[in-house]
Amino acid sequence: MRELDLYREVEHVSRFISGYVGNTRCVKVVVGLSGGIDSSLSAALCVKALGRDNVLGVLLPYRTSHRDSAADALLLAKSLSIATETIDISPMVDAYFCDVDLPIHPLRKGNFMARMRMSVLYDLSAKHQALVVGTCNRTELLVGYFTQFGDGASAFEPIGHLYKTEVWKMAKLLGVPETIISKTPTADLWEGQTDEQELGISYPVLDEILYELTELDMNPTATENLTHPQAMYDKVNNLIRNSEFKRHPAPIPELD
Amino acid sequence: MRELDLYREVEHVSRFISGYVGNTRCVKVVVGLSGGIDSSLSAALCVKALGRDNVLGVLLPYRTSHRDSAADALLLAKSLSIATETIDISPMVDAYFCDVDLPIHPLRKGNFMARMRMSVLYDLSAKHQALVVGTCNRTELLVGYFTQFGDGASAFEPIGHLYKTEVWKMAKLLGVPETIISKTPTADLWEGQTDEQELGISYPVLDEILYELTELDMNPTATENLTHPQAMYDKVNNLIRNSEFKRHPAPIPELD
Repeated sequence: MRELDLYREVEHVSRFISGYVGNTRCVKVVVGLSGGIDSSLSAALCVKALGRDNVLGVLLPYRTSHRDSAADALLLAKSLSIATETIDISPMVDAYFCDVDLPIHPLRKGNFMARMRMSVLYDLSAKHQALVVGTCNRTELLVGYFTQFGDGASAFEPIGHLYKTEVWKMAKLLGVPETIISKTPTADLWEGQTDEQELGISYPVLDEILYELTELDMNPTATENLTHPQAMYDKVNNLIRNSEFKRHPAPIPELD
Repeated sequence: MRELDLYREVEHVSRFISGYVGNTRCVKVVVGLSGGIDSSLSAALCVKALGRDNVLGVLLPYRTSHRDSAADALLLAKSLSIATETIDISPMVDAYFCDVDLPIHPLRKGNFMARMRMSVLYDLSAKHQALVVGTCNRTELLVGYFTQFGDGASAFEPIGHLYKTEVWKMAKLLGVPETIISKTPTADLWEGQTDEQELGISYPVLDEILYELTELDMNPTATENLTHPQAMYDKVNNLIRNSEFKRHPAPIPELD
């Protein structure tokens, strides 16, 4: 696995953020705070780059969200001294699903919730003349562990080049509260959901395999020199391949 | 302005659609029908490529939508013999804006409506294991006349390479009902809205200028050989430049 100079990388991302925002008509950003590590780190980096007055944290709870999610999001906002707004997405989500035949697959409902959050964030971005900050990391982007046009929608992705294990390290470096760093990663879209259970692989192993496959161009069919079981490589390769469409703009025909 | 062989282009787009869909696990598509020419042509092309049983038309009215919109969408569906579903987005939209300070800028509300429609279409695409068809034309894509992550969100854009004036011609060729072809283009996001009024330019002029700027690489600062007033070129150039961000994926830092 690669070894980043994290101090240097923080400065680099900070310049990326101020450079990107500086090229627009906006000076502010809005970031959806889930109480998780990715949105916490993204917010912390934006504060470093733009100053705390230019970062608005937005809490977007659903009525079944874990109670720790909002508490941790507020804790993070407090630690960064940024303002927050809270908008409950339950009325919008329930207005749709009340007419739909039950039971709804949790994934359908989870994706819908993620898109409601995007819609609210983009409306607030218009209201405040602010840009929407993406909060996806490289691990999620590569395996497609995000909702297309939901949490995958943003103006820029400040941590999109960092593996999840690097997100943990950088968050620690930036003083993100320990309770956020140490809790089990979850999209919190349904009760008991955890990323690693849903993905069927732990983040440290996933990151190592992703690094080998995408940066070392390792050939996973070779049966020698594999750090992990062959089946793991096949699994990760499939995750990458099957989520290809999420990472590319919709294709358009060329003229005949 | 370029002259397309429209018969040939219909075949080409049809192969593009069946080729794209054939490479996925889906056989069906869902298309949001607004009653306008773009979604009508997109649906007609999908029916040609995939057969009418594989195309579901979805009406997504809001309570202030023009009454002709739904009537024309149903007329189109009937002319293509495709099934339809209707889902009123009013409860979702109103659930959000009821708590927001009034008055809301119509553009904010319009963008929110477009994103609610996207969210419903994507939920139906999961329900029916179908792909979401994009309905943007080249003119709209170039000047950014669409809602990012709203009507700009899709699996593929079958008419994304056709100027609006070409959409009219191809729709005629495919037998789209005359009432749809001849009505004034509007996003129907607020009362009295029309595309050409909002854009401040007629589609035939806009298409000609876009063609000259993007395909002939004409330099609009040269004061000779311009088909239209210089100010029009500047205006269109600005529309293209200011909507650049809508056509590209969110940037991600490279490692330092």
